[in-house]
Amino acid sequence: MAVSSADVDDAADRIRGHVRRTPVVTCASLDAAAGAKVFLKCEQLQRAGAFKFRGATNAVLGLDEGDVARGVACHSSGNHAQALALAARIRGVAAHVVMPEGSSAAKRAAAVAYGARIVVCEPTLAAREATLAEVLTATGAVEIHPYDDDGVIAGQGTAALELLEDAGPLDVIVVPVGGGGLLAGTALAVAAHGHGAQVVEVEPAGADDAARSFRTGTVQPSIDPDTVADGLRTSLSPRTFAVIADHVSDIVTVEDAAIVAAMRFVWERAKLVIEASAAVPVAALMGRLVDGERVGVVLSGGNVDLDHLPWLPPSS
Amino acid sequence: MAVSSADVDDAADRIRGHVRRTPVVTCASLDAAAGAKVFLKCEQLQRAGAFKFRGATNAVLGLDEGDVARGVACHSSGNHAQALALAARIRGVAAHVVMPEGSSAAKRAAAVAYGARIVVCEPTLAAREATLAEVLTATGAVEIHPYDDDGVIAGQGTAALELLEDAGPLDVIVVPVGGGGLLAGTALAVAAHGHGAQVVEVEPAGADDAARSFRTGTVQPSIDPDTVADGLRTSLSPRTFAVIADHVSDIVTVEDAAIVAAMRFVWERAKLVIEASAAVPVAALMGRLVDGERVGVVLSGGNVDLDHLPWLPPSS
Repeated sequence: MAVSSADVDDAADRIRGHVRRTPVVTCASLDAAAGAKVFLKCEQLQRAGAFKFRGATNAVLGLDEGDVARGVACHSSGNHAQALALAARIRGVAAHVVMPEGSSAAKRAAAVAYGARIVVCEPTLAAREATLAEVLTATGAVEIHPYDDDGVIAGQGTAALELLEDAGPLDVIVVPVGGGGLLAGTALAVAAHGHGAQVVEVEPAGADDAARSFRTGTVQPSIDPDTVADGLRTSLSPRTFAVIADHVSDIVTVEDAAIVAAMRFVWERAKLVIEASAAVPVAALMGRLVDGERVGVVLSGGNVDLDHLPWLPPSS
Repeated sequence: MAVSSADVDDAADRIRGHVRRTPVVTCASLDAAAGAKVFLKCEQLQRAGAFKFRGATNAVLGLDEGDVARGVACHSSGNHAQALALAARIRGVAAHVVMPEGSSAAKRAAAVAYGARIVVCEPTLAAREATLAEVLTATGAVEIHPYDDDGVIAGQGTAALELLEDAGPLDVIVVPVGGGGLLAGTALAVAAHGHGAQVVEVEPAGADDAARSFRTGTVQPSIDPDTVADGLRTSLSPRTFAVIADHVSDIVTVEDAAIVAAMRFVWERAKLVIEASAAVPVAALMGRLVDGERVGVVLSGGNVDLDHLPWLPPSS
């Protein structure tokens, strides 16, 4: 049975007390730039620095005792790795994380600090998948995919539930899309509790696989994505696309220059540290590409490298 | 009659609906670094980007109609300029701001955006004071001093009132000190509503006039201050020192290297954009220089120049 709005409600009950209820903040300068009242759901303040912790926690806590005993595993170079490591620690089981060479030292250190065992592999998708398969065989761990997983999708939707509770009625909720876990979960939450709110997905022009998938009606792969929004380079899965195709009103793409400008604007005016991927929906609002008077945005995460900011020249 | 705890309560009533009730957030990594449960009162999310808006608003709204009719004025190169400009706009009167040459273009633009009239002068205290005197004579405006003003002090104390309401009982509240307005207001709020909480002031080692004043029992000027915390270079006034001397438990000084490290830590781990001055009390906590299990911190502001971050090499 496909993942449903009821699964999002169940996820909210399951992860309560483990996830942080992040604040919803507003910023008059952003309202002026967007021509709308904008409500920012601050998932960059979530534990492990991104919404990913919601899905990972729901998936890990939802496993049967027997299934989870030998641990959980994933391949990830990004926020899911930290999220799964922390979720596994909460459940008291091992986390095996396959990371490609060249992953950010900070993200690797964070996963290690949460108790994960890191397995390094070559930086190709084939190597990541092969290495993960070996890890699963050797350890008996359960794979928790970063988005192609019903428990993960349902968990990600809980951010929108809280946003709707705290902001009140919204005309539209704007969400970035990479693999589609956050978007699918949000769509399910809004379908049940949004009182008619629309869901608009935004993605970088340099990684527009979701727009192409939406247009053609079948999942189109993300080939050679080129965008500063490193969390949004992945392809949809049939599982996330099925939900998205049913529930999403519109797709918008934004250029990298607009993403960087939006990221800087949020830092400078809203005083929030967000990563480039989180700035993608903000860029759409500042470009007046989304209709609505009361607009919710899920700020997806805040894990950045403070030595390399995209508006500054590269340091020598 | 000296400014009192009751004035802080009155200020809370007066400015309600004009100031933002900023969130209190926590950060597990900071707790671990500090060895305490730390509650961060996010005044960097205040309107105009700093707690200064509280004091300016209370002072401007507290003026009689006849006194305020010809506007308000100050000399300031920093956060008070923006705060006063916005407070004056709310009251519907003119704001005249004397700014020294070389002030940050961003801060000047922000004050202009709030409707202030800017008068530029040479970058010396004598020129600032002389120019302000001319402006006051020419316009009939009322001076609102950034800290040597009972209304301003009382307004600044409202941040601590909210912190105490939202965080629950605290062992200590840690506050940065420049001119002492925030510190004096906080001390008055805590004296009435702190249930025995202590107030500790922290200042940069390169601008340790408050520590010297505390030791000698008289106001010592800040001469040639040298610190990255540009909001804390000013001297106490007899008015702020009188409150501080009566109510503050301890003074701690921190080096600039620790301030920059704390600033970066708060950006990276708590995902909050704070200015160097706001990182000063955090540096004291991370250095284990403050005793207490439950510690409140007023993060004073978040107005920074994103092109020049203190942990990055200067760009060419």
